[in-house]
Amino acid sequence: MDLDVVDCDDLPMPRVSQDHLDARRRQILYGSRACFARHGYEGATVRRLEEATGLSRGAIFHHFKDKESLFLALAEDDAHRMAEVVAEQGLVQVMRNLIAAPPDVEGDAHPSYLLGTRLEVSRRLRTDPDFRARWAERSKELTVATRERLARQRAAGKLRDDVDIDVLTSYLELVLEGLVSHLAMGLPADDLEPVLDLVEESVRRHSARA
Amino acid sequence: MDLDVVDCDDLPMPRVSQDHLDARRRQILYGSRACFARHGYEGATVRRLEEATGLSRGAIFHHFKDKESLFLALAEDDAHRMAEVVAEQGLVQVMRNLIAAPPDVEGDAHPSYLLGTRLEVSRRLRTDPDFRARWAERSKELTVATRERLARQRAAGKLRDDVDIDVLTSYLELVLEGLVSHLAMGLPADDLEPVLDLVEESVRRHSARA
Repeated sequence: MDLDVVDCDDLPMPRVSQDHLDARRRQILYGSRACFARHGYEGATVRRLEEATGLSRGAIFHHFKDKESLFLALAEDDAHRMAEVVAEQGLVQVMRNLIAAPPDVEGDAHPSYLLGTRLEVSRRLRTDPDFRARWAERSKELTVATRERLARQRAAGKLRDDVDIDVLTSYLELVLEGLVSHLAMGLPADDLEPVLDLVEESVRRHSARA
Repeated sequence: MDLDVVDCDDLPMPRVSQDHLDARRRQILYGSRACFARHGYEGATVRRLEEATGLSRGAIFHHFKDKESLFLALAEDDAHRMAEVVAEQGLVQVMRNLIAAPPDVEGDAHPSYLLGTRLEVSRRLRTDPDFRARWAERSKELTVATRERLARQRAAGKLRDDVDIDVLTSYLELVLEGLVSHLAMGLPADDLEPVLDLVEESVRRHSARA
């Protein structure tokens, strides 16, 4: 991710402020992503977030109400990045990227921090309905993008047409769930490429099936 | 699970002892399963395990070396039960049972305790190679049963024959992984029946495909 910090003195005032705020926000997200990946949600203390972002707690919490909001902003960020890949290449490609990328690249677009924080997130999803609602809100962009991509594929005659698009969406999300869980447990992913081929093929139209 | 406690006084001595030991072992597994489900792995203290099983710590740890061994015995027990269903009906049926059974039946054959302990298990799998090895050892019966079932299905002409059996096995295990994760997060499963139909269909032979 490019931090792209703007030199605020060279630009007219209102624009400067917005650019500066955006850059700060990106700086915080970038550093805290690495911090969550390394230390987990609970372990990413305010002090560590300060170190990882190079900013004071005052600056950090000027942009994000609290640690949970910061974390959910990362989840939203991820969902947004994934949704972009989904729109162009489908959810199976998101999964291929997950198993292809080294899972320990910190601060990268790779949602590796998810692997470090996933267990805590899962526990909160399980026990905290309010968090579950906020998380679902942040994640739904991915579901929407998946459904829309499948609808376009169907319109183009590339998708099987004997199964409802909502079912295909749930199917792909369930496999993604399994894959993230698999990676989060530190299990090897090097034999999963042909499995993803099978997943992809199972939502496609087959001339013989039509 | 039927505790089936044998009245030890009516039987010849060596047989009694073994029956009694077996019954005790089942009693411990039965009670501790409920205890792990309710309190999680860390929360299932020795005191709570005593209460849940109705036995002293001495009696419990006479049968199981330590809490981890007890927990892994439950994992083995689960893998064994699931392997039995797999042998007869396949891994997709195991998944159907998971979404059909009420997930909060305590002490039941339903591996609901997995949902309560899964996060801790996942963390240990991720961070403790020794535990990962012991867990893999306990779980492999399920993989073996799945592979054997698929081989029989292929021999019977019911399985697609254009994809390697190891790939199909990994595929089904990945979906199971996703399903357990989904349930562990407390997400609704009532729309997943048609998804499992799709999973089942995707490993089957299709006359049109052959």
